[in-house]
Amino acid sequence: MLKLSKLYVVGIGPGSYEEMTLRAIRTLERCQVIVGYTVYVDLVKEHFPDKEFLTTPMRQEVERCRLAFEQAAGGKETGMICSGDAGVYGMSGVILEIGAEYPQVSVEIVPGVTAALSGGALLGAPLMHDFAVISLSDLMTPWELIAKRLEAAASADFSVCIYNPSSKKRGDYLKKACEILRKYKSGDTVCGVAFNIGRQGEGRTFYTLDELAQVRTDMFSTVFVGNSATKLVNGNMVTPRGYVIDKK
Amino acid sequence: MLKLSKLYVVGIGPGSYEEMTLRAIRTLERCQVIVGYTVYVDLVKEHFPDKEFLTTPMRQEVERCRLAFEQAAGGKETGMICSGDAGVYGMSGVILEIGAEYPQVSVEIVPGVTAALSGGALLGAPLMHDFAVISLSDLMTPWELIAKRLEAAASADFSVCIYNPSSKKRGDYLKKACEILRKYKSGDTVCGVAFNIGRQGEGRTFYTLDELAQVRTDMFSTVFVGNSATKLVNGNMVTPRGYVIDKK
Repeated sequence: MLKLSKLYVVGIGPGSYEEMTLRAIRTLERCQVIVGYTVYVDLVKEHFPDKEFLTTPMRQEVERCRLAFEQAAGGKETGMICSGDAGVYGMSGVILEIGAEYPQVSVEIVPGVTAALSGGALLGAPLMHDFAVISLSDLMTPWELIAKRLEAAASADFSVCIYNPSSKKRGDYLKKACEILRKYKSGDTVCGVAFNIGRQGEGRTFYTLDELAQVRTDMFSTVFVGNSATKLVNGNMVTPRGYVIDKK
Repeated sequence: MLKLSKLYVVGIGPGSYEEMTLRAIRTLERCQVIVGYTVYVDLVKEHFPDKEFLTTPMRQEVERCRLAFEQAAGGKETGMICSGDAGVYGMSGVILEIGAEYPQVSVEIVPGVTAALSGGALLGAPLMHDFAVISLSDLMTPWELIAKRLEAAASADFSVCIYNPSSKKRGDYLKKACEILRKYKSGDTVCGVAFNIGRQGEGRTFYTLDELAQVRTDMFSTVFVGNSATKLVNGNMVTPRGYVIDKK
């Protein structure tokens, strides 16, 4: 079937306009309608005047995707924005699944800088070697599976990047996660928290794994737990890849 | 100590100018000297005329980093470019480690779109849920540790993104990796290979895990192995996050 209109799923990166890829910027400039979660729309709005913006609140992800498809099916070039990358705990999966109902709409996914990368750069180089990305949100995933993945990652000495470390309802989840990681990782393991990446109030703090278990984070934080070789170098978190560095 | 000059470590994304972040572009525009591996310098060169480009061949990563520091220490704003993200099997770790020898040089890391994200977008949405990133290169990592990580990731039903799936010397490594993953993952697990992402000859192919074991890839390929829920939807690889999608 001839595809009549286009829906772009665009990862906007951590939040600032500068952290978007040129492709993401040009894609949104091409769109007539931009759809997204209110917080992310507010981040990009000023840079794309003359666009029609449509938002839905949190927890209405499927409705948001349908809204985007309806706009595209109606003949408007439409962009659905996600923070970070649309393919990492973002909307590209749902969009592709719903897409079967809208054969006249062609979907294009535009990747962006996810928090593992932007937070990693802020902290130093915590993910230079093999790593696992795990979300602590149990809204759609049983805690038993999250726990199993934390334990498996720790058992094989992965660095671990934790998304959604806690929320109001899940105040003790990061502590529970640290206790699981602690079965295999030393209490001295170098850890870091990146917060408000690319936005006002951006910052970072380093902890040991035992200290991290006592930290309260929020939904704008990304947590990094090192592997057994991770160290602090001049105030940065570095997981060596293994290069031999001769002193000069 | 007062920092006198600046060294930027810049992830340029998969290869095309459009996939760079605006911050990466503006950073390189600000630099006098751009240092990198020959292949990556050739990718960006035309977009940054009037710059001094310095290259070193593969396997001379530490020398390349020192070269960059010497330029910066000499008073030139210097950019060290890496493909994808500088913090994922890139140069930011070595740069931060060597940095201790150059206290007058201040280091800034500019994140970019790594192949897990750009390749993921090309294939669909393979990394929508928890995932592990593993390199099969055993140049600096014992194969036993790589094998252990593959097995741990498979045992906890992670999606797995494989970097450096093979090279001339390591022709059978992807096969060996698939055999390890096969201990826990079904032979029907949906897999995909993204190749030449963002460059001429860009493409994708889907396989089952059993088929993937027979595939010969090259160093410009990134491999994605789904979790137990990953499926092909309209010719795209999708790992559902768990949203309930009511049919209209």
